[in-house]
Amino acid sequence: MMIHAECVPNWLKKRSELTPDRIALEFNDHSYSFLDLHSRANTWASALYKKGIKKGDTVGLLAGNHPDSIFILHALFYLGARVVLLNSRMTENELKFQLDDSDASFLISEQKFKDQVQFLKKNRLIAYLKEDFKESDWPEAPILDEFDLEETATIMYTSGTTGKPKGVLQTFGNHWWSAIGSVLNLGLHEKDTWLCTVPIFHISGLSILMRSVIYGIRIVLHDSFNEKKVNDDIMNKGITIISVVTAMLNRMLSELGSQEYPNAFRCMLLGGGPAPKSLLDDCKVKNIPVYQTYGMTETSSQIVTLSPEYSMDKLGSAGKPLFPSEIYIELDGKKAPANQAGEIVVKGPNVTKGYYNRTRETKKALQNGWFYTGDIGYLDEEGFLFVLDRRSDLIISGGENIYPAEIEGVLSRHPYVFEAGVTGFPDSKWGQVPYAFVVLTHENSVTEADMIEFCQMFLASYKTPKRVLFVPELPRNGSNKLLRRELRKLLEEEQQTDED
Amino acid sequence: MMIHAECVPNWLKKRSELTPDRIALEFNDHSYSFLDLHSRANTWASALYKKGIKKGDTVGLLAGNHPDSIFILHALFYLGARVVLLNSRMTENELKFQLDDSDASFLISEQKFKDQVQFLKKNRLIAYLKEDFKESDWPEAPILDEFDLEETATIMYTSGTTGKPKGVLQTFGNHWWSAIGSVLNLGLHEKDTWLCTVPIFHISGLSILMRSVIYGIRIVLHDSFNEKKVNDDIMNKGITIISVVTAMLNRMLSELGSQEYPNAFRCMLLGGGPAPKSLLDDCKVKNIPVYQTYGMTETSSQIVTLSPEYSMDKLGSAGKPLFPSEIYIELDGKKAPANQAGEIVVKGPNVTKGYYNRTRETKKALQNGWFYTGDIGYLDEEGFLFVLDRRSDLIISGGENIYPAEIEGVLSRHPYVFEAGVTGFPDSKWGQVPYAFVVLTHENSVTEADMIEFCQMFLASYKTPKRVLFVPELPRNGSNKLLRRELRKLLEEEQQTDED
Repeated sequence: MMIHAECVPNWLKKRSELTPDRIALEFNDHSYSFLDLHSRANTWASALYKKGIKKGDTVGLLAGNHPDSIFILHALFYLGARVVLLNSRMTENELKFQLDDSDASFLISEQKFKDQVQFLKKNRLIAYLKEDFKESDWPEAPILDEFDLEETATIMYTSGTTGKPKGVLQTFGNHWWSAIGSVLNLGLHEKDTWLCTVPIFHISGLSILMRSVIYGIRIVLHDSFNEKKVNDDIMNKGITIISVVTAMLNRMLSELGSQEYPNAFRCMLLGGGPAPKSLLDDCKVKNIPVYQTYGMTETSSQIVTLSPEYSMDKLGSAGKPLFPSEIYIELDGKKAPANQAGEIVVKGPNVTKGYYNRTRETKKALQNGWFYTGDIGYLDEEGFLFVLDRRSDLIISGGENIYPAEIEGVLSRHPYVFEAGVTGFPDSKWGQVPYAFVVLTHENSVTEADMIEFCQMFLASYKTPKRVLFVPELPRNGSNKLLRRELRKLLEEEQQTDED
Repeated sequence: MMIHAECVPNWLKKRSELTPDRIALEFNDHSYSFLDLHSRANTWASALYKKGIKKGDTVGLLAGNHPDSIFILHALFYLGARVVLLNSRMTENELKFQLDDSDASFLISEQKFKDQVQFLKKNRLIAYLKEDFKESDWPEAPILDEFDLEETATIMYTSGTTGKPKGVLQTFGNHWWSAIGSVLNLGLHEKDTWLCTVPIFHISGLSILMRSVIYGIRIVLHDSFNEKKVNDDIMNKGITIISVVTAMLNRMLSELGSQEYPNAFRCMLLGGGPAPKSLLDDCKVKNIPVYQTYGMTETSSQIVTLSPEYSMDKLGSAGKPLFPSEIYIELDGKKAPANQAGEIVVKGPNVTKGYYNRTRETKKALQNGWFYTGDIGYLDEEGFLFVLDRRSDLIISGGENIYPAEIEGVLSRHPYVFEAGVTGFPDSKWGQVPYAFVVLTHENSVTEADMIEFCQMFLASYKTPKRVLFVPELPRNGSNKLLRRELRKLLEEEQQTDED
């Protein structure tokens, strides 16, 4: 056991010593240097310590994208508490489940969630709203000088399509190595600024906060995604990198119109599933450097990324595993050859050490240091990963595997299709059949029959959607990721409406 | 014990998969992609394996700055052998000592060192010249897919001013973290190119090779330092970073004349001791971004670096410890307050785990994860490190501590002084007194008395050199670092000449 390899200096504190005056964070035209950020975190640490939070405690954080949330998050790291990042869109019962399941003894939240907090308060759980802390001289708290890379920093629950949500343990080491893997791929410029419009309770947002203090770069934070505000900031605020998913990028491009982003904007980090060709073509025309990525809560954000030099040649690929990570495809218990689809298996220091209090699920997912993602994909001859689908989204129709993403890709090529989602529906003959849900760029521009005919040009008949339904929008989660399992509800709602 | 945090994929192999076509290395207008580099390393691994080198073996490498040396070095990593990097300027007896001391069982060298190799060959040590390997179809060797970060990759002997040289163990983790610490400070641009004119058998050169494969950047390699060739390449070859010491930078600036380097050149990484103000002024006038650094074999290169934004404000400082590292000053067994000089103590994952087969020296140098550098310095109020001297170079005169670097700094301010070295000489009255050795820009432009008078303007009388001797050049080691202990010999030689 080497002592020195397991710890690194407290990130924000170290950063505030190295580059105290650099801007760390901008929000609604307020800005905070790294020294400000450290000093706010320190004050919050003192306040929270006074309220009884100490090393080893588990603390839920139910808070929006706001500087205070970032101060509090760092303060909790300073104290050595584990933070459960709670999705603010969850129902009270979902929140209650996660707080109970993670053995959280504290909850920190804010006024706008006071109803939920009221519901969640109970004997064992002590809850505070940030607004309850009046400015005061708190006695100084003991803060960590070093972070142990093996210690759990955060817990995030995965939505889990089957069974109950599981708490993914993310260590300081996971976050550290994720940031390092990213920098070795994307590079690091002195003036880098990462625009964060994704929720900080998701790994896509949290990982931006981690990178900021590790790299010493500025974040511009938005409380939610708004394509107009995003484009304005890219145009005027020296943004160099942004994390998006397809739906966000679509909206940004529509809003952008004929304009182009400045040259300094160097990375459109695109996650959340394969991107349609038409979208990538649009980006190419506008000289937007798209980096497609693949990652999940269990890998502490991106683990596979496609650099722009390959974005057209390797269309639809998520790229190659970042420097410290490895990947292979498993089929029938063996390593699959090139171009054969199977389960995506990954390894690396950014991969979770397991699920909290879920020995069985952890053992199933983590074998000999390899993590079984449950996702389906293949590697081509050159080792580029193509993600076909979340395994749970797989449609099995008459014994054939159908990957929703493939059908969505075809639909997205249609000039009037803004976005599309596909899911399986029960069918007495085939077991399941694919149904498509489409958002059009212009209402009533095409018919269901047109769309089915269009698909038949590109897809085997068993893959052609049996129905195409036009909807005003697709169900998405907090990171704007398509929720295929929610599509079914849209159909039910439509049938309801028809019956009314 | 976490399995996944201790290993990373074989660096060059991984790099050759990620960016196969990027240029890795240029030498005399030959260039090699990362795929070429991997394929050469692979071939060499097969050849060396056929000759009996296998995992766990210790292999001496006595070779110049040449692509073959790099192929062979990586090949040895591929096989899992530890590499003892031998300084080609050493005498046969010095080489013999290091090979014996490190328990090396093989020696790989080249034709130009055949005399030394002849001398070193003995029963236990099997020696090969690279020229002996004729092109051939070697059966494929088993190569490492992963590097264990705790494993020793290289052994380098420190010159050690007292006692016998000690073999510094450098693990893969040491090299990895050193590269990461550097990238978090210097950033990483896609077109970065590091000019390597320092010997690859020194940590200054070896660390460039490591960064190249970890970052995926191009190296331009020179077989030795020549200021004309260096300036030509900076001007014409897209060099962005170079590692130098003061003497090299002096020569580069003289040769450069009134020209300026291109804007793309972004980092003059300056190690090997404090830089004189006049030199930094010159660099400022020419818009050369100087990063002063402090580091040693035991820290796998730089551990403290000053960014250019501080290069004038914090003149003479080596800066702050890189991200994963920590530092403090110890005085009388306690942490010294700001501005108090004492021993520099460092910690970090880039720090050696000890000296090979030297339990006593290792225990003395490494205590609770902290490494006692033996160097003297202080931290100012803002935490910037000022290195005063190697402890072994300290002059004690009438009970007062005199730091040669301080006197050298004063001498270097004189307009006719090109460079200066100071060391202590025995004195019956004071114990020791400082003697200065000066290289002038113009011969006979000043007298010894002039120089002493100049020093008296800036220095306490006990610090003023008792003698100033003019010499054509200063003794330096393979990394162009001043060898103060060799200065004495210059005086002896001069006295010899006088007596002739």
